[in-house]
Amino acid sequence: MLNFDYYNKTNFIFGKETEKRLSSLIPKGVKKVLIHYGGGSIKRSGLYDTVIKQLTDANIAFVELGGVVANPRLLKVYEGIEICSKENVDFILAVGGGSVIDSAKAIACGNNYDGDVWDLYVGKGQIEGTTPLATILTIPAAGSEVSADTVITKEEGQLKRAYSHISLRPVFSIMNPVLTMTLPAYQTACGIVDMLAHTFERYFTKESNVELTDRMAEGLMKTIINIGPKVLAKPDNYDYRGEIMWAGTHAHSGLLGTGRSDDWASHMIEHEISGIYDIAHGAGLSIVFPAWMKFVYKTDLPRFAAWANRVFDIEINPNDLEETALKGIFALEMFYKSLNMPIRLSDADIVDNQYELMANKATNHDNNTLGNFVKLSKNDIIEILTLAK
Amino acid sequence: MLNFDYYNKTNFIFGKETEKRLSSLIPKGVKKVLIHYGGGSIKRSGLYDTVIKQLTDANIAFVELGGVVANPRLLKVYEGIEICSKENVDFILAVGGGSVIDSAKAIACGNNYDGDVWDLYVGKGQIEGTTPLATILTIPAAGSEVSADTVITKEEGQLKRAYSHISLRPVFSIMNPVLTMTLPAYQTACGIVDMLAHTFERYFTKESNVELTDRMAEGLMKTIINIGPKVLAKPDNYDYRGEIMWAGTHAHSGLLGTGRSDDWASHMIEHEISGIYDIAHGAGLSIVFPAWMKFVYKTDLPRFAAWANRVFDIEINPNDLEETALKGIFALEMFYKSLNMPIRLSDADIVDNQYELMANKATNHDNNTLGNFVKLSKNDIIEILTLAK
Repeated sequence: MLNFDYYNKTNFIFGKETEKRLSSLIPKGVKKVLIHYGGGSIKRSGLYDTVIKQLTDANIAFVELGGVVANPRLLKVYEGIEICSKENVDFILAVGGGSVIDSAKAIACGNNYDGDVWDLYVGKGQIEGTTPLATILTIPAAGSEVSADTVITKEEGQLKRAYSHISLRPVFSIMNPVLTMTLPAYQTACGIVDMLAHTFERYFTKESNVELTDRMAEGLMKTIINIGPKVLAKPDNYDYRGEIMWAGTHAHSGLLGTGRSDDWASHMIEHEISGIYDIAHGAGLSIVFPAWMKFVYKTDLPRFAAWANRVFDIEINPNDLEETALKGIFALEMFYKSLNMPIRLSDADIVDNQYELMANKATNHDNNTLGNFVKLSKNDIIEILTLAK
Repeated sequence: MLNFDYYNKTNFIFGKETEKRLSSLIPKGVKKVLIHYGGGSIKRSGLYDTVIKQLTDANIAFVELGGVVANPRLLKVYEGIEICSKENVDFILAVGGGSVIDSAKAIACGNNYDGDVWDLYVGKGQIEGTTPLATILTIPAAGSEVSADTVITKEEGQLKRAYSHISLRPVFSIMNPVLTMTLPAYQTACGIVDMLAHTFERYFTKESNVELTDRMAEGLMKTIINIGPKVLAKPDNYDYRGEIMWAGTHAHSGLLGTGRSDDWASHMIEHEISGIYDIAHGAGLSIVFPAWMKFVYKTDLPRFAAWANRVFDIEINPNDLEETALKGIFALEMFYKSLNMPIRLSDADIVDNQYELMANKATNHDNNTLGNFVKLSKNDIIEILTLAK
């Protein structure tokens, strides 16, 4: 069990009609809000109108910037930073999913950094704090409504990079499961894959004596695996939507990683895939994770066997833990398939072999390796991508 | 799943030697700190010296007030409020366990309330905010290092009452498991009973579709039950102490109660016992909970059977859920006994029958009932105390 700081200062406002409490949650003294969002879905659902009415009725000034796309782009971030500067924005409200929130976080950073905000994403700069931001979440997946992280794609060079800062934890996050009911099945499934992945990145670590976070993570994984197919079958079931939404937050709140070192190699490999092919992050993860597991499971057979047993109810064969571990990985693949998610690159029509390019891009920073559970070299990554073929 | 707000804004600084970061954590601008503590244990352990050195080296002014006892008293709170007022204290540091922290919270309230602070505990007053406070935790049990709650005993009338306010969440809590290694076995066991009880109060509720919090709570309970006897056997094992310490926080962080209504009847009944007999809160809880369970389990046999199965690995008998439920309650009693905790009033030498007095005191406020899972009348409480005889 490692030393850690855990500071999750977001105020979560969860449940039906909670978006109608928006204006009361914006800190007193805020002068101008930037409303940041994606396409037309929040206009179709009426959420946009609610937000505008909330701010207007409370006499809170605002400007807006829409048009954020999946795998959010640096150019849109620059646009937001310019608006903040010109309009003296002092609070940012992200209305949408992880892409919108991550874009808002990048703007919140850039508004407090003199140089090019991309510096932060490539380790060339640091900030003291950011413009405060809050979220109204419409897609449970990325956990950006709770996390201190932002992931942005730079169009030039197809680079997808992350930055973290404690002040990027939102001031508040409004979470109404009803707002997620209109999500298409594919996006819902991508979100489920993503939140499971956030748990894996913290669960498959080398620290011993982390039983509390192990067992709480297993409870979270079991819940997601149980409810995932149900929410696809009944997309307008409030309770299923609610359980998945709250699970997505705790998959990425950091709590389940306390006292442990995290891994994140699979996420980094996935960033290279979606950086080039622009597939959904969740689709990339359901391809990478089984391959990563097949590459690393022998490092800690008891952990993989316990996982298979506690999460997928696979009986442990004490004479052959490898068999148990492999049954677990197979069960995970079958779970992804039950959500209609790809489990091989070819399932996502990725057939040109750019493994070396991706492995190069993934390792040409830091110490030339990825991950902690197993430190992956460039060649290891090529092997994992080959396993995912 | 009910609507909820969840705002856990405490910064947890967890691990070895973290008390040496104290001065860097105290907010800039603080003028004078009240250091609040209990008896001599923090002086014997050297923690007191560390705290004084931290504040002195950083030129942070302070005053101090020791002498808090278990089941902390209102008279000590008054003393603290007077010091704060006279010395212009603007930050309170509680160094100790739940009693010290609860006393500090009461002082933090009283320092911001014009009338008698006891008003708050009996529903006759409200506050807007409190003096900010932080903790260095030395006894994992009450969860007061994370909670918004304070429990104080008024000597006159032996009244033990609780008050909650969101601003009572500590600004930070320093948690070094090493500081808990010298805790005597009995106090360690009392803490384990208390954190399990905090989980029960949230787990045995009537809401459906709360699988996420159910399963995470089961993970936490399983961890406590597994590690509890180990920490008693090896009191200086860092990892066991660490797991128990962090489990105690999440048993009472509120996370496991999100979307649910909580119960708290057993705690209220226990407050009447320890209010009169001055036994440890944990000892009262290991007496009350089995009796409460025997009184209420038929209300939701499937829940009690699932609990027995998932937490104590008792096989579910689908033809006789009652049998499974009762095996679970028996397993809990055996767990308490393995910690050398009392499971009957007579085990704690409480043999005079004051059941009616306690039941009267417990129900002479609010709506004359206790709890949510089953709303207990005065006679129900007498029956539970009789089951605990």
